[in-house]
Amino acid sequence: MNNKVFISLALMLAVVMTSAQATSSVWREVKPENMVLMTLPHGKVVIELAPQFAPNHVERFKSLVSKGFYDGTEFYRVIDGFVAQGGPKDGSAKDKSVSPLAIEGDFTPEKNWSFTLVQDKDMFAPQTGFKAGFALGYSPNEQKAWMLHCPGVIAMARENGANTATSHFYITNGQAPRYLDRIMTVFGRVIYGMNHVQAITRTSVIDGEEPVDKSDYTPMVSVQLMSDVPKEKQIHLAVKNTEHPSYAKKLADRRKREHAFFYKKPPPVLDICQTPVGVKLIK
Amino acid sequence: MNNKVFISLALMLAVVMTSAQATSSVWREVKPENMVLMTLPHGKVVIELAPQFAPNHVERFKSLVSKGFYDGTEFYRVIDGFVAQGGPKDGSAKDKSVSPLAIEGDFTPEKNWSFTLVQDKDMFAPQTGFKAGFALGYSPNEQKAWMLHCPGVIAMARENGANTATSHFYITNGQAPRYLDRIMTVFGRVIYGMNHVQAITRTSVIDGEEPVDKSDYTPMVSVQLMSDVPKEKQIHLAVKNTEHPSYAKKLADRRKREHAFFYKKPPPVLDICQTPVGVKLIK
Repeated sequence: MNNKVFISLALMLAVVMTSAQATSSVWREVKPENMVLMTLPHGKVVIELAPQFAPNHVERFKSLVSKGFYDGTEFYRVIDGFVAQGGPKDGSAKDKSVSPLAIEGDFTPEKNWSFTLVQDKDMFAPQTGFKAGFALGYSPNEQKAWMLHCPGVIAMARENGANTATSHFYITNGQAPRYLDRIMTVFGRVIYGMNHVQAITRTSVIDGEEPVDKSDYTPMVSVQLMSDVPKEKQIHLAVKNTEHPSYAKKLADRRKREHAFFYKKPPPVLDICQTPVGVKLIK
Repeated sequence: MNNKVFISLALMLAVVMTSAQATSSVWREVKPENMVLMTLPHGKVVIELAPQFAPNHVERFKSLVSKGFYDGTEFYRVIDGFVAQGGPKDGSAKDKSVSPLAIEGDFTPEKNWSFTLVQDKDMFAPQTGFKAGFALGYSPNEQKAWMLHCPGVIAMARENGANTATSHFYITNGQAPRYLDRIMTVFGRVIYGMNHVQAITRTSVIDGEEPVDKSDYTPMVSVQLMSDVPKEKQIHLAVKNTEHPSYAKKLADRRKREHAFFYKKPPPVLDICQTPVGVKLIK
């Protein structure tokens, strides 16, 4: 083997190793059993669940979804810039059959827990950061962490009492309502089809407008666990691995804003809810 | 006149005076010459312009709008959770005919200037507050104020240079991209039909998705000054007067969150972009 051939082979090997590492670690493929496929009349939405942060709410949601509980229910409280809330709001036996759940608004991380820090002294939290692609708040003093109400998260609705959530849920569709952090249970986020969430019919009108006819409310055609969807209709997605060093670098670059477009630098802070975590479709 | 009758008359007078005051000052009717009616294929959108904060950009926009410049142009750069950007992106003589504008990213308020304070030490600005219903940042040290990139604002797009905006504009459709504050010129905000802005076809896709066909891009059917719209088709709107004491009280209440729903109080801070300014339709 001459030197040129050896170098070529070594380079090829390096390229193969780099791309293997890239697929295994820069991106994380989402498991079908942690994804929910919501089919709306106008398009498909995929939600990634967060069992590591809200185990009981995820278990509840998966259990309802796997029974087809939400199929045919409607988004009955949809406020532009706030939330699209849905579920069986009909006082039916089905609605009443679901027992209340204890809130999982925050959790105590294990010792040596860490996350990818985004911002120290965020206005609503001592720290914000990503873990497994989810936006979290963290208080080192309290030793508590919690999922944030960024746009596109799914959370369980409730009555006034903390432990009153049953089956109704909402998806945030506007500026992050961070005042709801820790007092509601966020349990996942939309990773595909947020444009279709944004197209859900608003049920709330301003003073002087005609009320929206209930027949115009947007129904959920079906809500299924992705792992229950026939293989040929499954949607496979990968999410940027927020624990990979490349993601921390992306955050650092975003904070610095070195592109020529920034002829004057903005404050070197990051709003985590305005910091995207990439998603890609896997064929 | 006996005492009872006198008291009744006095009470009636008080009620009449209070409601007269309420209509004249709790709400502010928006002048048709400061509103733009954008007709999309799927609905109507109304923008309130802010000549007091970005006079040259408003003048430019009004001049283009009154010529029908945007009629038939498209939203060609639409990213979910970021912006819907439109204009004559066709390299046409029409596009090139518009000269560049000097940026109006911030302004120097006059002496004794004041606004309705929302938050001291916002993450991106020393102070935030409302003036005439618009969300502003303010730096007492620099003696500068600026319109914020809250969801639903309209701003002029530009190239890398500060003073390169011409006719292309964007409307923010997701979490406030506050890092653009002061380096772009915001010149108004959507006060009606934000749901229709949210339904503009996204032109940006994720890795692995089919590109969006250009024939699916959302066109602007027409963009008109409301004062140029035939009287019977005009939309009349009033916006909460953010300088009225009742609005400051609303902010104080929102900060305290005394409703029983808040079984645990959130941090007593307000994200101005998540603080609504009411709008109503006037018949």
